[in-house]
Formats: sequence, structure tokens, C-alpha cells
Amino acid sequence: MTIVPERIMPNETEPAPGLDLELDEILTAHHGGKLDIAATVPLDGARDLSIAYSPGVAEVSRVIAEDASLTARYTWSQRLVAVVSDGTAVLGLGDIGPRAALPVMEGKSALFKAFGGLNSIPLVLDTTDVDEIVETLVRLRPSFGAINLEDISAPRCFELERRLVEELDCPVFHDDQHGTAIVVLAALRGASEVMRRSLPEQRVVITGAGASGVACANILQAAGVRDIIVIDSRGILAPGRAGMNSVKAELAERTNPRRITGGVADALPGADVFIGLSCATLPEELLATMAPEPMVFALSNPDPEVHPEIAARYAPIVATGRSDFPNQINNVLAFPGVFRGALDAGAKRITEKMKLAAADAIFEVAKDDLAADRIVPSPFDPRVATAVAAAVARAATD
Amino acid sequence: MTIVPERIMPNETEPAPGLDLELDEILTAHHGGKLDIAATVPLDGARDLSIAYSPGVAEVSRVIAEDASLTARYTWSQRLVAVVSDGTAVLGLGDIGPRAALPVMEGKSALFKAFGGLNSIPLVLDTTDVDEIVETLVRLRPSFGAINLEDISAPRCFELERRLVEELDCPVFHDDQHGTAIVVLAALRGASEVMRRSLPEQRVVITGAGASGVACANILQAAGVRDIIVIDSRGILAPGRAGMNSVKAELAERTNPRRITGGVADALPGADVFIGLSCATLPEELLATMAPEPMVFALSNPDPEVHPEIAARYAPIVATGRSDFPNQINNVLAFPGVFRGALDAGAKRITEKMKLAAADAIFEVAKDDLAADRIVPSPFDPRVATAVAAAVARAATD
Repeated sequence: MTIVPERIMPNETEPAPGLDLELDEILTAHHGGKLDIAATVPLDGARDLSIAYSPGVAEVSRVIAEDASLTARYTWSQRLVAVVSDGTAVLGLGDIGPRAALPVMEGKSALFKAFGGLNSIPLVLDTTDVDEIVETLVRLRPSFGAINLEDISAPRCFELERRLVEELDCPVFHDDQHGTAIVVLAALRGASEVMRRSLPEQRVVITGAGASGVACANILQAAGVRDIIVIDSRGILAPGRAGMNSVKAELAERTNPRRITGGVADALPGADVFIGLSCATLPEELLATMAPEPMVFALSNPDPEVHPEIAARYAPIVATGRSDFPNQINNVLAFPGVFRGALDAGAKRITEKMKLAAADAIFEVAKDDLAADRIVPSPFDPRVATAVAAAVARAATD
Repeated sequence: MTIVPERIMPNETEPAPGLDLELDEILTAHHGGKLDIAATVPLDGARDLSIAYSPGVAEVSRVIAEDASLTARYTWSQRLVAVVSDGTAVLGLGDIGPRAALPVMEGKSALFKAFGGLNSIPLVLDTTDVDEIVETLVRLRPSFGAINLEDISAPRCFELERRLVEELDCPVFHDDQHGTAIVVLAALRGASEVMRRSLPEQRVVITGAGASGVACANILQAAGVRDIIVIDSRGILAPGRAGMNSVKAELAERTNPRRITGGVADALPGADVFIGLSCATLPEELLATMAPEPMVFALSNPDPEVHPEIAARYAPIVATGRSDFPNQINNVLAFPGVFRGALDAGAKRITEKMKLAAADAIFEVAKDDLAADRIVPSPFDPRVATAVAAAVARAATD
């Protein structure tokens, strides 16, 4: 049974090229989970045991008890990333709970190792209460050195991240927000370079005002983009509009400079860039109303807002979140290097400056070989994580 | 600088043979911590990434969301042991806190892998409040499949374990209690066989009424030993004695059948077995008052209650907790197989029956080659964990 292609663009008669993945192949690959722990010390005889465990380990404990800063030298914890989720916004599947979220978190931990050379452990929580999640992670603080929040629903994710940053002296990074935002900014830099346009002068429409939509609007604004319109399921965010939480209300004040109201059909005419971060489909007739030669980033996964082949009829540059189309906006370009750089630098926070530096570093790697179908580097380009880590570490210590 | 021998038996003029471990060698071995995480799935190209992560992993999450029992098949969690400590009773070092406890917990995780083939993660907690620890682990429940409690001070450890067993549907095992108790029982069976004595008829004196002292008294009683006297820092536990917590008071009722009062000097005359589980030293003149051919288990680590060479002047069978003397009572003989067996059997609890089965299995392996200096198998005997796991799994499913 071929699974993924059947689910992509169910409204399209034209079949998506797809990855031709069989459900059986996928499930078999995940059998027993995707992570394995190994000891980095020999344990082959009594002497090994006396060094790695009792009585030798008592000396290591004694040394740390006298100087807590030595935890970083003699344990794995200060370079260990906790991948934390409550399972409330898992991929496009929604609130499916912590157990069903775990395969994603294990995958994330696998990517941390493969792309960033970092150890990480998945922690899935049987509570969705922000206070309780904060309390739990504060109590566990000595166990790890950084927190990657994952698949936590908006607007709770904003408060959760803010609270954790306040209460913990270690990097905290909600990848669905900032990882996506960093790669979108890098891609938009690449696309603007290809089209020989000025990034700040692009008119940008973002559909979706969840974790990634809000973070994208923020980072694009920080990068100088002036005309950004954000749209949620009720329409364009505009001051005074009904049904906005505090994050959206604040964003409405800062964006939408022409104070447009209404829906996608009111926002898109004349827009240079569409960034889709919701599940809502984008009808072809609206695409036709955008400015000439627009850029279309249809990032919903696994089902893009508009099929990339349809988008390509109007847009010279099309990006998706999928690996089976060109220009994949993949968070794996960002998060391994971001955490690696932050931990290498001993940073206590991941600042806006570090995020902008990460986006610039991704763009700089892409620059050597930019084209309409290569606005970001391949996730497998080994230069990316190294360049991002170096740039983030530099930004952290500046 | 030679560290360990200097610390052993500070009251002895005779130097202990020691392990000749250098502090530098120990610290170097612990550099960067002792654990490493690896992905068990290939991540070498776009197709690998689509299977292990998005979009493929969504299918795995979907399958678990529909049937939570599939978590056991498609994640690592149900066979993952959380090694949990609050750092309140670390080795012989006492309440040195969670950071200083971490090297021990990492070592424990390394042993779980090396001896039991089980993945485990160290979780050290920045709280010593029993309610908060329970709450934290209940919230983290979907992340792991069993809990090994470690180095948590008595009497809190008793309440903590009881509460966790009540609130969690997975194996919970405080190794300082039950791991020690299992190996002590196995060793006492071996020693009794060597000396051709009946185990239940031995008169046993235990010094220490903390985690391991209480658990040893309990398992020996469960194995039929009738005359057990337990001694804490204030003296013999006896009904009505002052200064006993509820655990000690209950134990005082069940043990000490001859209702002896006083201290070690009152308990030892005529005793067949001394089991030292406190840091108090045992003077040679008291050893001389024991029954003829006694057994001396001086298990404090790293400093035994009495130097084994002195004990050997009186006792044909001497055991310690150290790897540099014969008859090492080492928990590694028990806990890897106990957890492996419990998880293999899908057990929700670790029952008394499973613990007794573990002790019997260790004794059965030793039986082939018993001698006064081989009352337990070597921790490196590959048959031990397999035999313990099989016996525990059988006891779980009976």
C-alpha cells in the first residue's frame, strides 16, 4: 500500500510525485524505537568497573560536590538536549498526546545526533498545563543542558517558552517557532538574491498565526521586512479585530501597515511572497492575483497549501516543507547548528541576534550555488550545521 | 597521587591492598560523561529522512494515536529505564545534591547497557520533596518503561517507592534497597552451602537500618531466616525503643525475637552472620564474640566496617562491597537481570517473589563453583544476567 502520496493534496486530480513510501517499510524502520544508548567507557573487567562505577566514581562526585561548574566537564548533562513535547500539536496531526508524539521526538533526537553531533533525550509529558510543564523541567534542570520544545500548541507554546527562558539558565528553543522562522528567512534571502530583489521591500503574506506563523512574522520584521500581513482562520490580523489572543493582538499592531481587513483574497493581491503555515488550501485563482513573479512557500506538511506544480504556473520560486520537491524548507538546516553553537559558546539564552546569525549562515552556504530551485542548501550539505554553529556561537559571545 | 587506598580504613595502620587508582586516571575516564546516544535508523539521504522523520514518522504517530499499546512496539520507551536520584544519599558521600550524583547515575546507565542490554537515561532532580518527585515522574511516565531509584536517603526512599508503585503502572525498584538485598541473600545462600549450614537457622545481625539494612532484613525474613537483629546508630531495634521512624518501629516488631536491647556488643555474641550496611566500624574484639566460624559481610563502600584481612582471622567466609577483595557483594549481579526480566515479561510490578527468584538464580549460577572465596559469581560471569532475567520473568508470569 502506498501511503503518503494518497494523502497529499486530496483535492487534486493530478497525482503528486510522492516518495512512494510503503506503510510497512515505515513501521518496520521504527520497530523498537530509533535511539540507542552506549557507554563511552570500557566495562570489561573489575578495574574498568572500579573506575567507571564504585569506588572510582565517588571521586568524580566529590569533585563536583566541591565545584558544581565541573558538572560540565565530568558529565554529559551540559551538552545534552532535552527534546520536550506534550503532544498537543504533533506535525499536522494535532493533539494526539505524548505517547503518539514520541516517535517524532525520537526522530528529532536522532537528527540532533546525525546533524549536530549532540546527545539528546526525548521527554514526553502527560500534562498540558503550562505551570506543570515549567515546574517539571525546572525540577529536572540538573539532568540536561538545553531544551528543544517541540509540537506544543499555540498560544500555550509562547507562554511556555517565555516562562522557561525566565526560570532556566540554559538555552530554550521552540523549534516549531524559531527553527522554521530561521529557515524561512534564509530561504527568502536566497530567493530575493535569485530574483535580484531587496528583501525589505517584499510584501509578504503569511497564512497561519500559530507557532511558526508568529515566529516567521517576527524574524522577517527583525530582518527589515516592512509589509507583512498575517492571517489566521478568521482572517487578516488587524488592530481591533475580534477573536485574537494577546499574541495575535500584539502582532496585529506591529504588522499589516496598510491596515487591510478581510481574508486571504483581500491580502494576496499585489503580494510578492506567500508563506503558507496553516493547513488551509490556497486556490489557484488567488495565486493569480499576486504581484508579477511572486514567491510561493507552501510549507504545510505533509499537504502543501497549493500543489507545487500548480504554484509554478505563476511563481518562479516555489518552496515546500517536503523532501520530494525542490527548495525544501527543512528545520534540520537550523536546529542542530543553533543548539551546537549555543552549547559550544556556553550561552544561557538563544537570542534574536543568534537566530538572525543562523539564517545568514544558511544563506551564505546556499549563495555559492543559488538558483530558482536551490534557494536553500540541501539538508545533507555538511557545511550547513558547522556554519550555523560557528555563526551562532559568534553571535552568542559578541 | 594514589587516592582510593588512602581512604580505605583510615583507622587501620595496615594498608589495604587497594586498587591503585590514580585520581587523574579516574577523572580522565569521566571526561564528557559516560553515555552516548546513537540513532538506530539510517539518516544518510532524503529518503532515510522521510522514513525516520517527516513525513513518514507521521504514520507511526497516527498508528499509536489509534492504539496506545503500540507505543511498546514503535518507540524505545517501554524498555527504557529511568535512573532517578535526588542526590541525597550518594554512595558513602551523603547528601551531595543532584549534580554531584549524576556521575553515579551515568555509570548506572552504562551498567544497565553493558550487563542487561537495556537503554536507560539518568534523571537527577532538583527537589528532595517526595510529593514533588512522585508528581514529576508521573508526568514523565510516557517517556520510559521502568524506574530505578538510586541514592535516595532513608526513610524518604521507602515512602517514595511505595507512592510510585501505587501511582505508576510500571516496574519501580530502589536498587539500594532491593538490589543489595537480593545479592546479600544470594551470597548468604552460597555461604551457607559452603559451610553446610541451614540458612533459616543462622542468627543474623545487620548494622544499618537505612535503605539496604531494612531491605536485607525483609528479604532474609522472606527467605525463612528467623533470628535477625537490626541495629541503627542508636542501637538495637526493639519494640518501644526511642527514636525510631515508622519503618524501624514496624521492623522492630517483626525482628529481634529474643528482644535483645543495647548495641552491637549486645547483639553480636553468638551470632552466625554479621552484615554491615552502615559506616560504623566493627572492632576486632567484638568479632571474637561471634559464634564459631561466623560469616562476615562488611559491605560499606569504599570503607568496609572491618578490614577483610582482620575479619578473616575469625571468619572463614568474608565478603565486602569491593572488587579488590574476594566475595564482592555487587548489585550489578542483580539489577540488570531484574529489570531485563521484568520488562521482558511486561510486568507492571517487581514483586517479592521476583526478588527471591533473582537471588535464587544468582545462587544457582554460583553453585557450580562454590568455595569460601567464591560464594557469589563474578559480576563478569555472562550467565548471571541471563539467568536472573529468565527467573524474574518466570516469577512475573507465574
